[in-house]
Amino acid sequence: MGLTPKRAFKVKSIDMEFPQPVVILNEDDAKELGIVPGNIVLVTVGDTHRSVIAMTTRTMAQRGECVFPLELTKKLGISNGDVIGLRLLGLPPSFNALKKRLKGEKLSEGEFLALLKDIVAGVYGEAEIAAFLVSQIYNPLTDSELAYLIKAMVETGAKVKFEETVYDIHSVGGVPGNSKVALLSVPIVASAGLLIPKTSSRAITSPAGTADTMEVLARVDLTVDEIVEISRKVKGTLAWGGRLNLAPADDIFVSIERKLAIDPEQQMVASILSKKLAMGVEKLVIDIPVGHGTKVEELKDAESLASIFIKQAGLLNIAIKVAITYGGQPIGTSVGPALEAREALKAHIERRGSRSLIDKALMLAGLVLEMSGKAHPGSGTDLARDLFLSGKAYEKFKQIIEAQGGDPNIRPEDIPIGRYTFTLKSPIEGAVTYIDNAAITIIARACGAPYDKGAGVEFHAKVGYRVSRGDPLMTIYSNSETRLEDALTLLREYQPIVVEGMLVKTLP
Amino acid sequence: MGLTPKRAFKVKSIDMEFPQPVVILNEDDAKELGIVPGNIVLVTVGDTHRSVIAMTTRTMAQRGECVFPLELTKKLGISNGDVIGLRLLGLPPSFNALKKRLKGEKLSEGEFLALLKDIVAGVYGEAEIAAFLVSQIYNPLTDSELAYLIKAMVETGAKVKFEETVYDIHSVGGVPGNSKVALLSVPIVASAGLLIPKTSSRAITSPAGTADTMEVLARVDLTVDEIVEISRKVKGTLAWGGRLNLAPADDIFVSIERKLAIDPEQQMVASILSKKLAMGVEKLVIDIPVGHGTKVEELKDAESLASIFIKQAGLLNIAIKVAITYGGQPIGTSVGPALEAREALKAHIERRGSRSLIDKALMLAGLVLEMSGKAHPGSGTDLARDLFLSGKAYEKFKQIIEAQGGDPNIRPEDIPIGRYTFTLKSPIEGAVTYIDNAAITIIARACGAPYDKGAGVEFHAKVGYRVSRGDPLMTIYSNSETRLEDALTLLREYQPIVVEGMLVKTLP
Repeated sequence: MGLTPKRAFKVKSIDMEFPQPVVILNEDDAKELGIVPGNIVLVTVGDTHRSVIAMTTRTMAQRGECVFPLELTKKLGISNGDVIGLRLLGLPPSFNALKKRLKGEKLSEGEFLALLKDIVAGVYGEAEIAAFLVSQIYNPLTDSELAYLIKAMVETGAKVKFEETVYDIHSVGGVPGNSKVALLSVPIVASAGLLIPKTSSRAITSPAGTADTMEVLARVDLTVDEIVEISRKVKGTLAWGGRLNLAPADDIFVSIERKLAIDPEQQMVASILSKKLAMGVEKLVIDIPVGHGTKVEELKDAESLASIFIKQAGLLNIAIKVAITYGGQPIGTSVGPALEAREALKAHIERRGSRSLIDKALMLAGLVLEMSGKAHPGSGTDLARDLFLSGKAYEKFKQIIEAQGGDPNIRPEDIPIGRYTFTLKSPIEGAVTYIDNAAITIIARACGAPYDKGAGVEFHAKVGYRVSRGDPLMTIYSNSETRLEDALTLLREYQPIVVEGMLVKTLP
Repeated sequence: MGLTPKRAFKVKSIDMEFPQPVVILNEDDAKELGIVPGNIVLVTVGDTHRSVIAMTTRTMAQRGECVFPLELTKKLGISNGDVIGLRLLGLPPSFNALKKRLKGEKLSEGEFLALLKDIVAGVYGEAEIAAFLVSQIYNPLTDSELAYLIKAMVETGAKVKFEETVYDIHSVGGVPGNSKVALLSVPIVASAGLLIPKTSSRAITSPAGTADTMEVLARVDLTVDEIVEISRKVKGTLAWGGRLNLAPADDIFVSIERKLAIDPEQQMVASILSKKLAMGVEKLVIDIPVGHGTKVEELKDAESLASIFIKQAGLLNIAIKVAITYGGQPIGTSVGPALEAREALKAHIERRGSRSLIDKALMLAGLVLEMSGKAHPGSGTDLARDLFLSGKAYEKFKQIIEAQGGDPNIRPEDIPIGRYTFTLKSPIEGAVTYIDNAAITIIARACGAPYDKGAGVEFHAKVGYRVSRGDPLMTIYSNSETRLEDALTLLREYQPIVVEGMLVKTLP
């Protein structure tokens, strides 16, 4: 590794973003150093090293120059005209761990740490990371290997320290309308005096993540310091976890899993527990929604996932409760950031709302209250209901909104929603028998959710409701007329809400 | 897939080479289209579509502009100011085949073809391709699946047509010094009047590929038309296959396999047979060198590989002979393009040379001669020897050199070799008992081979030779003093040539 030639280059920056860290070299320099496009090179700035992907050019970089994307120059602390060292990188030492893994051998705690360090440093490309993830499909990690992986994911990122016990609630997701649940459960827990600095993701494949929905009401791109300070003041946050550098390996894994449409359950557990450990969470409630069109479709899969959570939480010293919840239709009556923010806010103000929303939020908050000792076993939901009905949870929610820079006195009707709408009406008299989660997700995203905050779907009827012919079933919202058109095409194609009458068929 | 929004963009080109096809968009345009860096987008030029990877910029592309690397604009037939369509690509239809593969299901011939078409079109990134390859480690393809894969690799590239039967000899490689064997065997076969339009690769991890070594004597970057024309005239070529677009999927697979240091044997067979089928080869001799430090280290692995070759050749209608050859030490007395070209040329002129080189070349050529019916079974090597000793093979070699634009009358001593040299001498009297293939490869590459054509290693003694103290064992060559220094460090570290005396140890 030490034997590839190294040379000094002058830094030049360009304002371009790349999906991976790159450096662009003059073709002749690259040839001299034995570098071909796609090779990993080691850039040396003073005493620090960073691996990046080499590309070549005939004119963009002169001989002796190396061109970096602006973002990367900031990360490396270099600017135009600086001199850096650069050489072709041999195989990193942790490559042996990857090879062992592909040969079916077990890895030690140290090997996982070395591998994860290199993954986070950007030494590996997509191919190596995909190989690591795909190997798990065929050859699962042992329990202790999975714990080593999770610890290594935590060690290779930022860690947040709080002075008191940290609680959290986390849903594995996959059911539309779920993003707003935390806007009720977190303030309930915080209003009981427990510390719950919740960080969430933005939607990846769903119409809204909790961070997207909370962003309608307040800033969510908080720094670690802000989260610590706000939590100290108001006990809870509803922040976006994306830029906090918590278990950054997870983001790398998730991006590859998405490409491959794989979601190894061990990696799902690693993803969640690593982020929670990095936030110092000691007591955790996990929500696994089960139902057609959600991430976990079968009860037996939910139970298998739950058992991995419980085993790993034990190995990693996290007290855990897992709730397997009903996810057979959307949660509440809305899907999409602004519509869900309205629904959550309305529930706080009116102290009531859709049962699927209120019951779920109270139950999850209740489990946390029981774990904390604030409520006796079995009475957590009651205490959560008291906090909700008394308005204490709403007061807390307002404090959190204000602490995160939002307007605590915002009213549901102040929240803008999609300008263009279409309301689907029932073609017959009957009862709603089915709502297709997957189709609702696709339609809401076609409307523009989560990027168009006002886009989404609102239900006027849910499963079990009786409707007359012509009654509204659902309204779709978008700020773009063409997007609404697209969504209507999908609506006709998927027929995501099924009404069945008593009369099935008439014969001549 | 048809529902992501599409927009028109104005083309701008930059002179930069990327390892994969990319387009650079303004950040705001990307956001509007729901594109994040790394997404695959579909570029529409007139009626044709091409998938490329999206990147974003704040300043390099204005709103409405899209920036392409110059090379890609040429491939797409577009230039500055042209208007193209661009939209986020959903999952390609062949993605289902990849998913099936990852779930352990069998793929049909049509599914392999669809998958390979998309791989070659650049629809997939490294992650997907790595997943496909890694799945083969755990879950090998069936015989018929492998044949489908090979056919699909052929179908998705260029195919060359000849008017008569096409013969070929191919080594799976891995033993240093092997690149020059074809410089003897191919002219021998061609001098018997058989058509042998051989295409070879450049070295990837070895110190020299046949294309690198032939390039010392003549042009090797021939076009398909040139290969056809030269073959018609002189019956043989020694060309580089890299830019002929034969089974282009293979290059994609190989680049990922290198990154992962995996080499699934099925894929090795697919790689070779697909390129041969694309060249219209009907009768093929495969050489599998076996020995420590080569690609195939154990006889049983060579036999397993041979049986896959034989089975697939049967399914694909290629007549095949597989020769498992001794690869326990380098072939001949030289390693590196110029040194090997000298050795091959000298052997042709003097009609003699190192036995490991001459015997191997005659044996491989002999097998082809037997397959053609020019020689009776068992007498192919004799005919090959006649052609070699009579000078007919040298005449043919000169014709091939001339047809490929080289000087047919070049003498070995005209070929420049590395300016800087170091000769390793035997520290004791004894016999050479071992030469380490892998260490020789590393040292020759450290000297600069294959890019520095004059770099490499020359042996003055090989296994079994008796040497006195101070006798030269090997000389290393480089055109760079610092590279020679690097190589010397490795020489001291690896001690790649072992001399053992009769006296093992003295006791007090």
